[in-house]
Amino acid sequence: MKKYTSLNDIENLSETIQKAIQLKENPYQFAHLGKQKTLVMLFFNASLRTRLSTEKAAKNLGMQVSVLNITNAWSMEFEDGTVMNVNTSEHIKEAAQVISQYADIIAVRAFPTLKDKEKDTAEIVLNSFVKYATVPIVNMESATDHPLQALADAITITEKKTTSKPKVVLSWAPHPKALPHSVPNAFVHLMHRMDVDFVITHPEGYELNPEVTKGFHIEYNQQKAFENADFIYAKNWSSFNEYGKVLNEDSNWMITEEKMGDGKFMHCLPIRRNVVAEDAVLDSNNSLVIEQANNRTFAAQVVLQEILTNL
Amino acid sequence: MKKYTSLNDIENLSETIQKAIQLKENPYQFAHLGKQKTLVMLFFNASLRTRLSTEKAAKNLGMQVSVLNITNAWSMEFEDGTVMNVNTSEHIKEAAQVISQYADIIAVRAFPTLKDKEKDTAEIVLNSFVKYATVPIVNMESATDHPLQALADAITITEKKTTSKPKVVLSWAPHPKALPHSVPNAFVHLMHRMDVDFVITHPEGYELNPEVTKGFHIEYNQQKAFENADFIYAKNWSSFNEYGKVLNEDSNWMITEEKMGDGKFMHCLPIRRNVVAEDAVLDSNNSLVIEQANNRTFAAQVVLQEILTNL
Amino acid sequence: MKKYTSLNDIENLSETIQKAIQLKENPYQFAHLGKQKTLVMLFFNASLRTRLSTEKAAKNLGMQVSVLNITNAWSMEFEDGTVMNVNTSEHIKEAAQVISQYADIIAVRAFPTLKDKEKDTAEIVLNSFVKYATVPIVNMESATDHPLQALADAITITEKKTTSKPKVVLSWAPHPKALPHSVPNAFVHLMHRMDVDFVITHPEGYELNPEVTKGFHIEYNQQKAFENADFIYAKNWSSFNEYGKVLNEDSNWMITEEKMGDGKFMHCLPIRRNVVAEDAVLDSNNSLVIEQANNRTFAAQVVLQEILTNL
Repeated sequence: MKKYTSLNDIENLSETIQKAIQLKENPYQFAHLGKQKTLVMLFFNASLRTRLSTEKAAKNLGMQVSVLNITNAWSMEFEDGTVMNVNTSEHIKEAAQVISQYADIIAVRAFPTLKDKEKDTAEIVLNSFVKYATVPIVNMESATDHPLQALADAITITEKKTTSKPKVVLSWAPHPKALPHSVPNAFVHLMHRMDVDFVITHPEGYELNPEVTKGFHIEYNQQKAFENADFIYAKNWSSFNEYGKVLNEDSNWMITEEKMGDGKFMHCLPIRRNVVAEDAVLDSNNSLVIEQANNRTFAAQVVLQEILTNL
Repeated sequence: MKKYTSLNDIENLSETIQKAIQLKENPYQFAHLGKQKTLVMLFFNASLRTRLSTEKAAKNLGMQVSVLNITNAWSMEFEDGTVMNVNTSEHIKEAAQVISQYADIIAVRAFPTLKDKEKDTAEIVLNSFVKYATVPIVNMESATDHPLQALADAITITEKKTTSKPKVVLSWAPHPKALPHSVPNAFVHLMHRMDVDFVITHPEGYELNPEVTKGFHIEYNQQKAFENADFIYAKNWSSFNEYGKVLNEDSNWMITEEKMGDGKFMHCLPIRRNVVAEDAVLDSNNSLVIEQANNRTFAAQVVLQEILTNL
Repeated sequence: MKKYTSLNDIENLSETIQKAIQLKENPYQFAHLGKQKTLVMLFFNASLRTRLSTEKAAKNLGMQVSVLNITNAWSMEFEDGTVMNVNTSEHIKEAAQVISQYADIIAVRAFPTLKDKEKDTAEIVLNSFVKYATVPIVNMESATDHPLQALADAITITEKKTTSKPKVVLSWAPHPKALPHSVPNAFVHLMHRMDVDFVITHPEGYELNPEVTKGFHIEYNQQKAFENADFIYAKNWSSFNEYGKVLNEDSNWMITEEKMGDGKFMHCLPIRRNVVAEDAVLDSNNSLVIEQANNRTFAAQVVLQEILTNL
């Protein structure tokens, strides 16, 4: 693996999942692979799970880790040819090359603006790092994708499925704030790669980027979508068409125990209780959210391991 | 030791103190005990001494350390059953369980509100971590206690005492800001466990929580309290009765060289010079404040060591 | 080496440069020198290059590293005898001694006020750490100096020079904000120590501290200064005479490809493109800025190594 900016960087997904499951059993078996190698983790946005799990994954592999919080990605210049006499004080060309001097792998988190659809869709921050850095880049959640989360979810579904082709539903759920499309996009990308019966459900107006969901059935009736579901993945996102807008906070879309039936509940966390899903869902034995969080470590570890092997 | 949230978690105090003193002589003797173990340090409030000493203690034991600053504990939800559609975005139930996936021990710092006496006294943040985390919790200063400071003070007194039952005075001192009760409470808890002649002195209205000071003599005359004192522990705190209020900034309560006599001076730091104590006190050979700070490392290390041994 | 607060702490510069160049070839040859030693890095100001390169250097030597961001140096008290009842909450006397309990070496970054010339010139923060700390201090950019940058520049010039006595020009360049004198001062200090033909060029009114530039020719005509230059070091700084003021943003002083001729371009970064220097300069093969950034690691490493050897 030369980089991990999207799930496309994984050639053989089921093989990668199996490697991660083996790592989970013995996380320190490759503790010398990262010796004298440095991971620089750059956060343009706050992080709890991604920060702790990726740091742990790197250290499990024996890597050195530097964590750098940069308050605002947009004080960095991403355009070519700009006269930088206003707000931006460093060009990504220099920044990415410079950080590459101190890192063997660079991991980057940079959320979308949710205001400038074109900029977000172009993944300017992530792609600029890929373009100008001279070391491999790992995506720790970008404007439109979150492939480490998707890989953790792949591990979780593989571990917990009881049929060869489970029914998986991605359901929009209410939330008071405008949230990115990164996690739902990442999950849809994953569904393209797994042998599942996949349905997306959300209120009208909440269609994700059609380039992403192409080929999947969108069912606007949540109840119908949930019938016989093995896994229900809940997530809020803001509108893609009316870009970054909250169109609807209808609590009828909240995930309830009754709606879940025997399905297993998934969510990337953090989750607002009794808004996205009711307490009974999260406190049920059918909730997989802590398992998903745990698998973040092994998703990151298998990715770092694959990249280290190719350095 | 299963956790360290208060001095009560130490069964045999004098034995623990002796272990810490031995660690001080050879800090790396257990450098393999923490191998492949991770300490996650969560700071809801700023830290210098606690941060550096606890991190060093963990690394002396060979642990991996992740430090996470979280700006505001109160954007986390601590109540059960809340509809989280306003300010809080993650419930402690998830947060504590998730962090437990990445940590073998979690250390938490969360100061009091000094506004909501009931909430502070209930130690909601600390106790919620204890309740929901699946790994041991270490208190790096909570709403009402600071047991790592108390243990460092215990080591310092043990090292510096010249009589078998020294006279120890805890004296309130002036300060322009409202400060927590954590350190004085922790010190009083300690005094219950050591063989000392203990007196508390402060202006009227500054009584600490009577549950904490029960059984000890409060002397409102500072001069009388200081007579023949071997150790004088100075600390400001805000009123407990008029919760979180500054009632008095009377500089007559400042600790002076003259008042000290031959007593040894203690303070947890940071200290405002010429407000809490005059320069001559801090610059005297009788000041133990730097020794106390140094002992923070070995207090933390003996605690982590005891917990690691029981994992 | 007992400390590294200025280039004066290097006795034999060319020997130190050669050591750094050897380290670059095999950065891990002294990986056990820093075992069980801790570097505490204190940042009163933001940092990217210095943070990552110094941390990496320390870890290459096997040291433990703690990074502490302290928002504001000026909430620390640096004056003697002050009654600290207003804004400052900890005196440098305690802070420096306390941090010395947890560190074998302390590295400090503290920028100038650019308002109080006397305070800045006196290097109060840095010198207070030197005075009160009980372990060696490393300057990671202070009010008036940046000797780690200077050493990296020394390595770069040594590696890239093609004549025994190259012509080196330090040129002021425009910038919209008031910047410190640390980097230009450090570079001038370096020029005093290297066998070069050195010229300083800037608009009138931008004279650096004459104590620093004493003995060097100042040429107000940039074009004339650049004639036959082997190395052109560009940097903005604010006025020293009209302390901290931006007197001039004349874009005629911007470094262009045409002006450069065959000279090699140097800058400490970050750099505002098309303000300080045009794109063509930075994108040219004659730009050494990434090499300079890379050499920051080995400058820091040779310094830490020399200090560790003397502990």
